[in-house]
Amino acid sequence: MNKKSYGKVNEDLDKERKKCTFNTTELTHLIEGGEEKTKERRELEDFFLSDPELNDIGAAGEYTSHVEKYQEAIRKSCILFKKIQDWQSYKNCGSSVDMYQSQSSNNLVNNNSKQVSNDSVTENELAKNKQYMVNIYLEYRSILGGTLGSAIMKDGMPFVVHYVMFIPALVGQGTLQQQAYWISRAWNCEIICTYAQTELGHGTFIRGLETTSTYDPATEEFVLHSPTLTSYKWWPGGLGHTANYALVMAQLYTNGVCHGIHPFVVQLRDEETHMPMPGIKIGEIGAKLGMNGTNNGYLGFDHVRIPRDQMLMKNAQVLKDGTYQKSPGDKLAYGTMIFVRVAVVRGVAASYLAKAVTIATRYSAVRRQSELKPGAREPQILDYRTQQYKLFPAIATSIAMFFSAKWLWDIYNTVTHELDEGRLEQLPELHAMACCLKAVCTADAAVAIEECRRSCGGHGYMTCSNFPATYGMVTAAETYEGENTVLYLQTARYLVKCWHLTKSSELPATVQYLRKATSRRKPWINSLHCLAEAFEQVAAGLVEVSASKIDVCSKKGMAPEDAWNSAAIQLVESAEAHCRSFKLNTFINVIETNRDLSPELRKVLTQLCELYAVFWVLKKVGNFLMYSNIRKEDVKSLQDWQYALLISIRPNTVGIVDSLGVGEEILGSALGAWDGKVYERLFDASNESPLNKKPVDDSFHKYMKPFLKSNL
Amino acid sequence: MNKKSYGKVNEDLDKERKKCTFNTTELTHLIEGGEEKTKERRELEDFFLSDPELNDIGAAGEYTSHVEKYQEAIRKSCILFKKIQDWQSYKNCGSSVDMYQSQSSNNLVNNNSKQVSNDSVTENELAKNKQYMVNIYLEYRSILGGTLGSAIMKDGMPFVVHYVMFIPALVGQGTLQQQAYWISRAWNCEIICTYAQTELGHGTFIRGLETTSTYDPATEEFVLHSPTLTSYKWWPGGLGHTANYALVMAQLYTNGVCHGIHPFVVQLRDEETHMPMPGIKIGEIGAKLGMNGTNNGYLGFDHVRIPRDQMLMKNAQVLKDGTYQKSPGDKLAYGTMIFVRVAVVRGVAASYLAKAVTIATRYSAVRRQSELKPGAREPQILDYRTQQYKLFPAIATSIAMFFSAKWLWDIYNTVTHELDEGRLEQLPELHAMACCLKAVCTADAAVAIEECRRSCGGHGYMTCSNFPATYGMVTAAETYEGENTVLYLQTARYLVKCWHLTKSSELPATVQYLRKATSRRKPWINSLHCLAEAFEQVAAGLVEVSASKIDVCSKKGMAPEDAWNSAAIQLVESAEAHCRSFKLNTFINVIETNRDLSPELRKVLTQLCELYAVFWVLKKVGNFLMYSNIRKEDVKSLQDWQYALLISIRPNTVGIVDSLGVGEEILGSALGAWDGKVYERLFDASNESPLNKKPVDDSFHKYMKPFLKSNL
Repeated sequence: MNKKSYGKVNEDLDKERKKCTFNTTELTHLIEGGEEKTKERRELEDFFLSDPELNDIGAAGEYTSHVEKYQEAIRKSCILFKKIQDWQSYKNCGSSVDMYQSQSSNNLVNNNSKQVSNDSVTENELAKNKQYMVNIYLEYRSILGGTLGSAIMKDGMPFVVHYVMFIPALVGQGTLQQQAYWISRAWNCEIICTYAQTELGHGTFIRGLETTSTYDPATEEFVLHSPTLTSYKWWPGGLGHTANYALVMAQLYTNGVCHGIHPFVVQLRDEETHMPMPGIKIGEIGAKLGMNGTNNGYLGFDHVRIPRDQMLMKNAQVLKDGTYQKSPGDKLAYGTMIFVRVAVVRGVAASYLAKAVTIATRYSAVRRQSELKPGAREPQILDYRTQQYKLFPAIATSIAMFFSAKWLWDIYNTVTHELDEGRLEQLPELHAMACCLKAVCTADAAVAIEECRRSCGGHGYMTCSNFPATYGMVTAAETYEGENTVLYLQTARYLVKCWHLTKSSELPATVQYLRKATSRRKPWINSLHCLAEAFEQVAAGLVEVSASKIDVCSKKGMAPEDAWNSAAIQLVESAEAHCRSFKLNTFINVIETNRDLSPELRKVLTQLCELYAVFWVLKKVGNFLMYSNIRKEDVKSLQDWQYALLISIRPNTVGIVDSLGVGEEILGSALGAWDGKVYERLFDASNESPLNKKPVDDSFHKYMKPFLKSNL
Repeated sequence: MNKKSYGKVNEDLDKERKKCTFNTTELTHLIEGGEEKTKERRELEDFFLSDPELNDIGAAGEYTSHVEKYQEAIRKSCILFKKIQDWQSYKNCGSSVDMYQSQSSNNLVNNNSKQVSNDSVTENELAKNKQYMVNIYLEYRSILGGTLGSAIMKDGMPFVVHYVMFIPALVGQGTLQQQAYWISRAWNCEIICTYAQTELGHGTFIRGLETTSTYDPATEEFVLHSPTLTSYKWWPGGLGHTANYALVMAQLYTNGVCHGIHPFVVQLRDEETHMPMPGIKIGEIGAKLGMNGTNNGYLGFDHVRIPRDQMLMKNAQVLKDGTYQKSPGDKLAYGTMIFVRVAVVRGVAASYLAKAVTIATRYSAVRRQSELKPGAREPQILDYRTQQYKLFPAIATSIAMFFSAKWLWDIYNTVTHELDEGRLEQLPELHAMACCLKAVCTADAAVAIEECRRSCGGHGYMTCSNFPATYGMVTAAETYEGENTVLYLQTARYLVKCWHLTKSSELPATVQYLRKATSRRKPWINSLHCLAEAFEQVAAGLVEVSASKIDVCSKKGMAPEDAWNSAAIQLVESAEAHCRSFKLNTFINVIETNRDLSPELRKVLTQLCELYAVFWVLKKVGNFLMYSNIRKEDVKSLQDWQYALLISIRPNTVGIVDSLGVGEEILGSALGAWDGKVYERLFDASNESPLNKKPVDDSFHKYMKPFLKSNL
């Protein structure tokens, strides 16, 4: 990001800000969860982004080679992680590191004699420990995940999995002794770790993984092996050339029996020389659409031996003689899986979409094009109804995502506490909502980001617009941590199950509508509550249709799996509709329960909420005509309502995106900068290209001139 | 593309091919327009792709720096263009070059004394000339545009505009003398040219361009100038460091009067040193989402003088004393503009989508994942209904595009002939169809390519899948050569105009349905003809709604432009619906008029056509419930029909994509290769990364080790 000052703010943008009718700070606080949260976030951003070492090369990274990109990512990562430790000391007086260090010494654990013994560890200690980790982890998340990290390294970071997956997995699956040893080393960055699960031939279906870990009681070791090419680990971030340890998921064999997937800590590279350990075949998987800073890698094992105590044994143990003992509950691992999806909704989908709408809206206020009135000045493109139709629903969607993400985070915390107390009731509901929210939010964000990019015409195609990297990050999240179609079907499975219970038992809050929705048939009026009801009717209608389709197929004698597969298209649609209905209700709820909202902000939020709803009704009007109390003759009035909303929102659009609070470095866009100096920044960005450093490139003399002259 | 042989074809893929029920060659010929066309295309591909110099680095290009990428693009372009000349000599015995060379000498035109005189040039000669150019140009198009070029340079080529825009523009706008001189030089590649129209601050709205060209009768020169930063030319391909001449569009001023936009040939760089000419400020615009091989550039003028005869004067002249004379007709320029859109429908949208569906389908036949039946082998993902729903409509769409592209090309040729005879009747219809087909086809292709990519899970995100470059190329076409929303609105303007004529006069073929569609209300049956009628009813209904909205607003006293803007969202939807209806009718027409189709192929094509139609009905079912004779109770039977079509198409899917005839080098994908050796190719592709050439990257010693050790 160019930090040069371009003088006064663009006049059009300045005018837009002056005509804003509400207090943008109030909206910022509401979105972020309070004034304190905004302050904290700003403090964090200032701490990291004011460091010239972390914010030095800016856009020029896209011109370097793949190897140079990697080296720069490592250089910056080292600086960043040192700085994270500084931040921790500054905020927590080093308590986190201290705690693990003292535990390490108390337990007399050292590199050569690690002992697995659960004797001295109570469940209570584990739970406390876990909560403590989650709190610290949250700070890491706000640094590494979401937007701050993307300001420092646009194309991903090779150390992230170390914190985001290795440490949480250790907490979830290691004994306290294992935690003490490994987390202490990881936390201090003595080692850099990754998490290796997915294989070249196996993704979603964990039971299909092929890597084996066979216990050898003679030496008290596990032997890790990759029996086929398709069993190579593939994708883990930082695995290529960065990590020296990995948590590897493998099929456990002991005494000739396969016990399924278990976690093993495996050393990949020598700590001094970084050379791959014997039997370790390792490298990076190559160039990708985006995230080229993450050093995703592959990993094959040729009979690699590790000590027995490097199997994580909180949930299951292999004794010295090879006896396999399963521990009673492994719900915590389930909780960890959900966690990443919860984090993606806010940290990726909502945050990156917020960037995109900010860039596109500011650009549309500055850009003038074509002719609305003959002879008049070219209008701001933000005044075209088609442009408003591209941007305003995306803005409303972004805000709806923030509110849903907050709900999801809150219920995640509640359920985690309940799990610690052994209560499992809310887990299926949380799981169902995390699945569909991750899927809908990443998919909507990806579509909307591309719409925003195209709405900026050719300039959106420039790397310096920051749309390409933004899209690359978000579309990756449509696939990782649960491919979206698979997640929709998981939510749908829950919905169909609930559907069958509507007559017999009480339903959880998010699905209670299944009972009543289809029976309500009132005349349509244009109101938020009528819209909310209609969304529920559509979701319920689609669930009903899918469930009946499955029933009909089953009655015809189809196997349950085939019956399920035959309804899969409608099932996906049901889960999506369920999620949209949830998002609308959550949005409405925020407006209605925040009683101290100023009337000005309440008005703007209501407009955005209405637009979110009306936009989706018209987008999916077929479903609404089929399953809700909307009739054909209502459609025109909905179109008029949408039209009126676009007009009402227009004067506040720049104010609304300003409220999303995306800072300059995080935005990282020539088109979206606060000052609106679009053309100056585009021009300066073009001159960062190394090709522009010389008037004539060497290739002219080497190739072109001989070619041109050969034709004379 | 890895040319290594991996032995036998993957077993699953082999089985798929064996169960295909129709002759894939028959479909290939139908799509390409006959056996002869397929033969020609293959001959062309063999000629170019068998050259090891043109097909040498393969995927490794993505690991190099920006400058290296450019230099490689220049190196290859020089080889390629030499080879194109060889091809021309081989096919045409050099006639094209000869013709222009003899004209040059006949007219005694040389570098120092170019004379503009139209005296000896008849209209007839110009027309003949033009047709001749178009024929030759077509061959260039099949080499440079579409898929062959992308096999040689995945990320675009810096010389393309020279052929694709400079030469055609000279044909359309230069006098015969100007053509003789400039085309001869361009054709022989003595000079490399580009076409500079778009400016940093001005795109679609040509009248808004700011670059000025002011005639100075004292020296008989034009003075080109860029009065502002926003007036810099921005985007032309090859402008950055490659071209030494450009055709520049500028506001012509003579005797103090502005006459609007006119074309001027301007020398940019010295022919010997390639240094920018005095007053020329030039460079590339920087990194982009894709097409980083095209060297798009910027260009500013500081009072740059050019001789009077470098204004192209076929359509308007400036005499020595500065007198401005407009020639009667400039329809040909209009024709040239349409031409590029016509080319994009087949060469970009249909061809690139064909690549994507081929890759995704073959991968889905090879990839096995999850569990349909407990205990059974993981199924091919092609057997999941959700996967079929992602891929099969995309396949049908790709085939529909090829047929519509053929229609568009035929009518383009007809209209061009008519224009030469001074007949203009069909031009508005051609223009309207070219606009909406370019918009719908590029937009549908972009969406479908991304759907195909995601359907391949994480592996689709790899550069070696070739999805990222494919998407980058196609999504660019959504914006260039007429931004899609602007194009939809141009078609809509034509539709509204025709709508008002329904009662009074005969309508052209493509809009005749406007008269009858809304009055037909028959009971629904599931048949192609009912579907086709329904599509027309929807298009007509949407046009009617838009037209009424404009009328109502106008009657309320709104200015015509505001009334238009207020209906813009519906107008876009009308144009889209019109286009989809057209595409369906064209598809049906191909099936019905090709009487010698084998019954097997006819069956498969009918299934694909039905799927195309049913998919879009269900996707936009709201519009069909609103405006067609489909009723709510028909929707379930349409869903069942769609379901049945997915099942019917399933056994032939691999055969169908094989018929699209995309060769290995053109496909360029580890996931989509003919042999289905997906995992072997992915693994080998990863090892093309230069990071994998050494076990330990230097950054470990330089950055990581000091960091890891500092924490001990």
